[in-house]
Amino acid sequence: KQIIMLPGDGVGREIMEGAKAVLNAVAGEYHHEFIFHEHAIGGDAIDRYGIPLPEETVKACGSADAVLLGAVGGPKWDDVEAAKRPERGLLGIRKSLGLFANLRPVTGFSSLVHSSPLKTEIVDGCDILIVRELTGGLYFGTPSERRDGGNSVVDTLRYTRLEIERIVEKGFESAMMRNGRLTSVDKANVLESSRMWREVVNEKAQHYPDVEVEHLLVDAAAMKLITNPKQFDVIVTENLFGDILSDEASVLTGSLGMLPSASVRTDGVGLYEPVHGSAPDIAGQDIANPLGMILSSAMMLRHSFGMEDEAEEIERAVNDTLEAGFHTADLDLKKGRIVGTQEMAKKVIENLS
Amino acid sequence: KQIIMLPGDGVGREIMEGAKAVLNAVAGEYHHEFIFHEHAIGGDAIDRYGIPLPEETVKACGSADAVLLGAVGGPKWDDVEAAKRPERGLLGIRKSLGLFANLRPVTGFSSLVHSSPLKTEIVDGCDILIVRELTGGLYFGTPSERRDGGNSVVDTLRYTRLEIERIVEKGFESAMMRNGRLTSVDKANVLESSRMWREVVNEKAQHYPDVEVEHLLVDAAAMKLITNPKQFDVIVTENLFGDILSDEASVLTGSLGMLPSASVRTDGVGLYEPVHGSAPDIAGQDIANPLGMILSSAMMLRHSFGMEDEAEEIERAVNDTLEAGFHTADLDLKKGRIVGTQEMAKKVIENLS
Ligand SMILES: CC(C)[C@H](C(=O)O)[C@@H](O)C(=O)O
Ligand SMILES: CC(C)[C@H](C(=O)O)[C@@H](O)C(=O)O
Repeated sequence: KQIIMLPGDGVGREIMEGAKAVLNAVAGEYHHEFIFHEHAIGGDAIDRYGIPLPEETVKACGSADAVLLGAVGGPKWDDVEAAKRPERGLLGIRKSLGLFANLRPVTGFSSLVHSSPLKTEIVDGCDILIVRELTGGLYFGTPSERRDGGNSVVDTLRYTRLEIERIVEKGFESAMMRNGRLTSVDKANVLESSRMWREVVNEKAQHYPDVEVEHLLVDAAAMKLITNPKQFDVIVTENLFGDILSDEASVLTGSLGMLPSASVRTDGVGLYEPVHGSAPDIAGQDIANPLGMILSSAMMLRHSFGMEDEAEEIERAVNDTLEAGFHTADLDLKKGRIVGTQEMAKKVIENLS
Repeated sequence: KQIIMLPGDGVGREIMEGAKAVLNAVAGEYHHEFIFHEHAIGGDAIDRYGIPLPEETVKACGSADAVLLGAVGGPKWDDVEAAKRPERGLLGIRKSLGLFANLRPVTGFSSLVHSSPLKTEIVDGCDILIVRELTGGLYFGTPSERRDGGNSVVDTLRYTRLEIERIVEKGFESAMMRNGRLTSVDKANVLESSRMWREVVNEKAQHYPDVEVEHLLVDAAAMKLITNPKQFDVIVTENLFGDILSDEASVLTGSLGMLPSASVRTDGVGLYEPVHGSAPDIAGQDIANPLGMILSSAMMLRHSFGMEDEAEEIERAVNDTLEAGFHTADLDLKKGRIVGTQEMAKKVIENLS
């Protein structure tokens, strides 16, 4: 399997090393061959090539089986012009690979739930999958420009019916593989695109009689994620709503540094990255938490390579490592022992069978 | 003072009665004359006139000093076509009165903070004002329509520089009257409108050297409201972001049923409504919480009539009533006594000096 590594900025490189070590251990155990190639993206690419997404990176990713991404961005590039910002690299690679479905699981780790800002009884047992549309909507709609000599501005929220259909299907398929409940989030009382979204969900629902479907307005969803997160199984929504709600959801269980994400299309190719950011303030100090990146590579094994056993083994090893009390400085474990980034990855490897 | 009452749907009428009784008591005490006129809006207007915002209602509001609104919407009107939904009435009256600034204070009541889904140490002392742009952006931008024979759809996020300037100024003015900190929320790494928004904030900041300004991306804001809500003083943001974030913020302190809101323009005319919805399931049973409506009328006294003392007296009376242990069924007070809607309003009146 050909795997492209895009370490990107900040702590990206360190956590990528950790994930690579874990993947190599799994490859040894199961006799797989993983071939890694590294390419530039984000601020790192801006520094080296003047643009956030070099053509070479796009080409390499285009012929790979999967892509691992560390993180992009940092204050260093905050002032560069819009077209050259690090995030453009991320948006560009998602779009050029056609990765229309962003899968963001929010799970609680029992050893971490005490550090949630929410009361334990509200979040304990919370297990949500957010399915976010990733290549449409306001993120890519045109026109997106100044008008009237700079006196007004316009952005465009655009979807084709096909774009809505394929992500909604992904939502239903995900619900079928989990607990059979799908919450579609929109703003149908205001947006025409949301009304079309709701229609598509109702149409598709006919083909998934075993899935229980609920429609929720985005403002109500933002409330219910806090008041009763356990009511959710799968949430499917458009790009910007998904951006906001998945970040909101990511802090519920006190395990932000642990959360993985997958951006996929229908043929299995995918890009995998932790939910946390590039954390430039702690970069290069061997203190960043590699577990989000490691769990992202488990998602890669599952979604891109169909290696379910291997994915579960990594997930179990991560859990066992936490249960044994090892953690990085960002996590707050009762009676735990703080270890560095590389040490943490090593502990996970020791816990593989 | 001419006050238009728009009870609307669900519990709207009951809570409006409560607020009216309190306002009449205040008028007696301070020798003011409040003249009330009632008009139809929302589902109630659809039932009676076939449209959610009759011309007569618009006209009456247009020549009033202030408008009180109960709540609009309910499952009864969920299936009517888009142009005739109850919410259209609300959007229509905001737009036709030019109420561009929505002020949503989120305060904790110490007697209620234990019922927050968040840990007490995270929310106790939380005091945020969200200043939301209310008459622009995706809510009103055109085109907003199906295309290609129904195979695609488009909504438009549009702002003029002037629209951004006036709401940003409102944000700065609000920060000046509070703790001098302003958080501007946008999505400047993706949206051109957000980049213009950020420019305007930076320009205006020059005129408010005493205000400490911070820019925050909307996804990060959705996280920080949960992890550290006490870091915020005033938040200023565009219409849809404000919709989502203010609803998210409204459940932080466990006092959703208590929260008021004001929608104002520069000359003092405003529309005041509680943050909670029409709650059709409990309508007509004299159990709804009138305090959100009563506190909204206190905001009216302050913002539209310049009656600061009177506003504070109502706010103090509400607080005293809660401290004395009286509450409606939605609130969870330790060792409190549950009373009905009208009884609750009476208790507040008894607590006026
Ligand atoms: C960096 C940014 C453009 C990106 C997004 O908004 O999609 C990020 O917030 C994410 O969710 O992956
Ligand atoms: C009813 C709806 C159109 C409205 C809005 O989105 O503005 C409501 O959610 C609000 O916040 O007052």
